[in-house]
Amino acid sequence: MKVGGVARRTIWPAAAADAVWVIDQRALPHRWTEARLASVDDVRQAIAQMWVRGAPLIGAAAAYGMALQCRVNAADAALQAAKLLLDSARPTAVNLAWATQRMLDGLRPVALPDRAEQAWQQAAAIAEEDVTANAAIGRHGLAMLQALARAKPAGAPLQLLTHCNAGWLATVDWGTALAPVYQAQAAGLDLHVWVDETRPRNQGASLTAWELGQAGIQHTVIADNTGGHLMQRGQVDVVIVGADRVSARGDVCNKIGTYLKALAARDNGVPFYVAVPRSTFDASVDDGLAGIPIEARSPRELTHISGLDAQGRLTEVQLTPAGSPALNPAFDVTPARLVSGLITERGIVSADAQAIAYHLK
Amino acid sequence: MKVGGVARRTIWPAAAADAVWVIDQRALPHRWTEARLASVDDVRQAIAQMWVRGAPLIGAAAAYGMALQCRVNAADAALQAAKLLLDSARPTAVNLAWATQRMLDGLRPVALPDRAEQAWQQAAAIAEEDVTANAAIGRHGLAMLQALARAKPAGAPLQLLTHCNAGWLATVDWGTALAPVYQAQAAGLDLHVWVDETRPRNQGASLTAWELGQAGIQHTVIADNTGGHLMQRGQVDVVIVGADRVSARGDVCNKIGTYLKALAARDNGVPFYVAVPRSTFDASVDDGLAGIPIEARSPRELTHISGLDAQGRLTEVQLTPAGSPALNPAFDVTPARLVSGLITERGIVSADAQAIAYHLK
Repeated sequence: MKVGGVARRTIWPAAAADAVWVIDQRALPHRWTEARLASVDDVRQAIAQMWVRGAPLIGAAAAYGMALQCRVNAADAALQAAKLLLDSARPTAVNLAWATQRMLDGLRPVALPDRAEQAWQQAAAIAEEDVTANAAIGRHGLAMLQALARAKPAGAPLQLLTHCNAGWLATVDWGTALAPVYQAQAAGLDLHVWVDETRPRNQGASLTAWELGQAGIQHTVIADNTGGHLMQRGQVDVVIVGADRVSARGDVCNKIGTYLKALAARDNGVPFYVAVPRSTFDASVDDGLAGIPIEARSPRELTHISGLDAQGRLTEVQLTPAGSPALNPAFDVTPARLVSGLITERGIVSADAQAIAYHLK
Repeated sequence: MKVGGVARRTIWPAAAADAVWVIDQRALPHRWTEARLASVDDVRQAIAQMWVRGAPLIGAAAAYGMALQCRVNAADAALQAAKLLLDSARPTAVNLAWATQRMLDGLRPVALPDRAEQAWQQAAAIAEEDVTANAAIGRHGLAMLQALARAKPAGAPLQLLTHCNAGWLATVDWGTALAPVYQAQAAGLDLHVWVDETRPRNQGASLTAWELGQAGIQHTVIADNTGGHLMQRGQVDVVIVGADRVSARGDVCNKIGTYLKALAARDNGVPFYVAVPRSTFDASVDDGLAGIPIEARSPRELTHISGLDAQGRLTEVQLTPAGSPALNPAFDVTPARLVSGLITERGIVSADAQAIAYHLK
């Protein structure tokens, strides 16, 4: 997508193929910062500290991490160790282990001297496939949005609500939940997006709002508490979110708070869609609530927050009383029964085990 | 309740009866600041700018505002004008108009020269009744908590979740939702409170956490997004919140986001209680969603936030991109069907029109 009129991706290889560049997303929306990752340790740090985040982007970054490992030592044992190192950076998004496993499987048959070159191409292919998949998600989602828009009175914009950031910053390009929004803009659909702030890391207020602003798409930031109220008053036509892992039966693990919006959508008859590439499904887990590990992140993400002070300096402030502990689980699980449909690069599939198995075949 | 070991109330008359003192709650939990309000305009400002907040405290403050008006001009027309001025400070909490109407009704039969003295006594009576009512709410709520605790395995603390601040800072003393918590502590009940941060003004993270910390009650601050996740995992035994207005049929208007917690409570079989003095009921409204005005507050409460910087200075920082609009409705309405019971000074009543009418008679 474009930033200041220039087409950008979230991750791109250095010209000398000795490193990969990413956007350090921690400083957005206030600062644009690019970071050069030259080793598997650099990549692990960028993932763990959320310079890059979003399940598909984490996958692509980890693939490049494996490729960077090959430049140092491409032996099977070294690659296996690199995979374990990268996979441990964040436990919930399944795309991470999916990408490192695919790299491992792809490189094992390759002769040792050719692995560095091959790995670079395989990582680039994973990134490229993500772009293609997300563009397809956008097309399938657009058809659904157009159908909803036709059911509305003329002159009223279609009102979409999204939680967290599942835009192009969460992927290599296009985004998952926001891909249909970008396609809708291109198709001239009149659209407005409610952007959940998404505490505690504020990915909605920081990243989604910034993305939509750059693209010139109408949007309004709301507190995470507000979506139910808007749905009760008929001000939300559809909810679309991304996901970090989807179970075989369609339980959706996504940013903490997603479940509450799914409950409100159900209570108010608002369709609730989840946009994910196929790499986000985990066939090994059926019951998402029991089977998907939920990352516990630092309480400091909740007790402190960064923003621009009156002098335009990035400043961190403490919000809570010093003696009060905080708990910060990063994800929750929305049961399949609350999901209207899953939008993948293959189309829209209902959230049930048989339909998903057939869809993914 | 005690602050640093000293018993305090949120509002107290000046010794010379020429002003009323309040805690300026905007600086909590970081600074303790007392403010002297010497005129009806001072009181209106303190309510509108949320130096004082919480439906019962707003009512008591407005009563003192009427009393301060009497010192200047106690004529019927002047009192009526003062009532309109105070009522317009915040539109949602019905306790505000209830208190000013009660003052007006109580003063009209009084001879003009006696009104200033009478008004002071009537305002003090409203404040005193609030304390008594909340203590009673605490006793009724405690019995309910004890019943829930008996159903739990031994050694496991009772887990309560609350949203916003309905503690003693929201009332004259004791609180509404937290009154049962304070009584439970006195009764030796093993209890832990999940404190919703409560964006955008963070009354949970700022005020509830501070109150509970001062009282030495076990608590943990969580993002507003987290309650549903905890309920899914059996980590919440009961939800208790306050309210700003309850309709004749039991629809509950409370801080934005309350509805989402009520949905999650229903989805997980967790009891959802609302603690309110009788002055919070509005018999003139049946359908809360259609009939209760929802205050729209400044978007700046969402786009900016204050906290302590590394040097311990109270600093405001901007969170969102400059070009992104925000919307900030302060309350939502939880339909009566999601409410397990309403805890008033008279006991616990079910959320339906007949039961409420009989209860309030």
